[in-house]
Amino acid sequence: MRFARLRVRGREHYGLIEGEQARLIRGSPFGRWEATTQVHSLDSVQFRPPTQPLQALGIGGNYADHIAQAEATSGKAHAGRGIQPWVKGAASLIGHGAPIVITREAQEVHYEAELVIVIGRRCRRASKAEARDCILGYTCGNDVSEKASWEKDLSFWRAKGIPSWGPVGPWVATDVDPTKGLDLIVRVNGQEHHRTNTKFMFHDVYDIVSYMSQYTWLFPGDVIFTGAAGVSRALKPGDVVEVEIEGIGTLSNPVVSEGLGEG
Amino acid sequence: MRFARLRVRGREHYGLIEGEQARLIRGSPFGRWEATTQVHSLDSVQFRPPTQPLQALGIGGNYADHIAQAEATSGKAHAGRGIQPWVKGAASLIGHGAPIVITREAQEVHYEAELVIVIGRRCRRASKAEARDCILGYTCGNDVSEKASWEKDLSFWRAKGIPSWGPVGPWVATDVDPTKGLDLIVRVNGQEHHRTNTKFMFHDVYDIVSYMSQYTWLFPGDVIFTGAAGVSRALKPGDVVEVEIEGIGTLSNPVVSEGLGEG
Repeated sequence: MRFARLRVRGREHYGLIEGEQARLIRGSPFGRWEATTQVHSLDSVQFRPPTQPLQALGIGGNYADHIAQAEATSGKAHAGRGIQPWVKGAASLIGHGAPIVITREAQEVHYEAELVIVIGRRCRRASKAEARDCILGYTCGNDVSEKASWEKDLSFWRAKGIPSWGPVGPWVATDVDPTKGLDLIVRVNGQEHHRTNTKFMFHDVYDIVSYMSQYTWLFPGDVIFTGAAGVSRALKPGDVVEVEIEGIGTLSNPVVSEGLGEG
Repeated sequence: MRFARLRVRGREHYGLIEGEQARLIRGSPFGRWEATTQVHSLDSVQFRPPTQPLQALGIGGNYADHIAQAEATSGKAHAGRGIQPWVKGAASLIGHGAPIVITREAQEVHYEAELVIVIGRRCRRASKAEARDCILGYTCGNDVSEKASWEKDLSFWRAKGIPSWGPVGPWVATDVDPTKGLDLIVRVNGQEHHRTNTKFMFHDVYDIVSYMSQYTWLFPGDVIFTGAAGVSRALKPGDVVEVEIEGIGTLSNPVVSEGLGEG
């Protein structure tokens, strides 16, 4: 199934994606729900982030090509292949179609195309086998990151946490298995920049959920960015950036300057 | 005025503190509200974090004595007296009276007693003078911090973001002025560990809000921890830690081991 959160005539709903249509549901995918008879075409609705998480977390360095870029940029050896957790910040999240705002101070704002895990139920100290049952599904994510404040700050707040720097969506797909290998493609202005596959992750989705749950409770709706694939590049106002993941869909967001077209 | 968020007979409400009683309100302190005739004694209610923020942020190194301790612990010179922003994470927040849970992996979990700013209205690029109008009020905070993962991680998620490691409360006081100097006292098991005054902050509350708002939107209910005062010390299960701020009140939380009495 594919669950979206949608704004329809000024009100927010969860919906079930059926081809080119969304069927609104009563309740939520994180609890009990039932389908309604209300159906809207996808081009008549506004996509919101598919969840409203308490925690938006991420891990670093999960693909070899991205680690190489990080080392070249920082001039320092990468901390290794252990899972490196960090906080993205739920205030950064926007849905499919919403603009990524390049703020006035920001220098070198890069896209980072990632598979995003969506937690379905509260979990703590899950084994790798149990982690499977904690996951509702997966969505596409763009871990938009500013490179100038990266090394300077005590956390990634200015580098990654700014509102609009966390596009996720368009929906949560519950019937895909990233451990079997899903193609992940990044496009800017329609041109393919990079193509990889989720099977090249050092740490798979069950490892990641199990690891994170050793340290914290994970709550329904929480999202975990699973690491950037490929080499990231700077975005500029006017660009449109797309993250497509096989079996999930395509997350597309325009890039605007602060004060010009922001939400 | 003093606004609290309270759990009464299984339901959550905002309330106005009147001496030893709470008067429930309709609406919220971040919008329109009106007082009701429902009054409860403070010992019959459960305190929740006074806000449900989208962003729980903090700054580092805002008192000279705490910087000296950080330098001694890390063996490195502190980054200086510029404002150093970081993300606490809203999932960490608990209210007055709720237990701080020492997780099994945690080593050296310290209290950090802090004044916490509560944002009242959406703001962006506020001047220092405008910052005043963005603030609803102030509450007491305990920026519980684990020292072992401090230097190792890319952010403070494991050091500061764990659920229950962000006690805030008991309420938001709207009529105090930290720039005029408020005594701030930390007690463990009734014994005073440290006493300082908010006038010793390097960066006052208007500086902090103005600075943070240059980088991000601040939203109603967001909280900003303004830096630890004094020397922090490790907590152990069985302790009760109190943060008292003049004109606000006393935030008190018991410390428990994971699996023993956690909420």
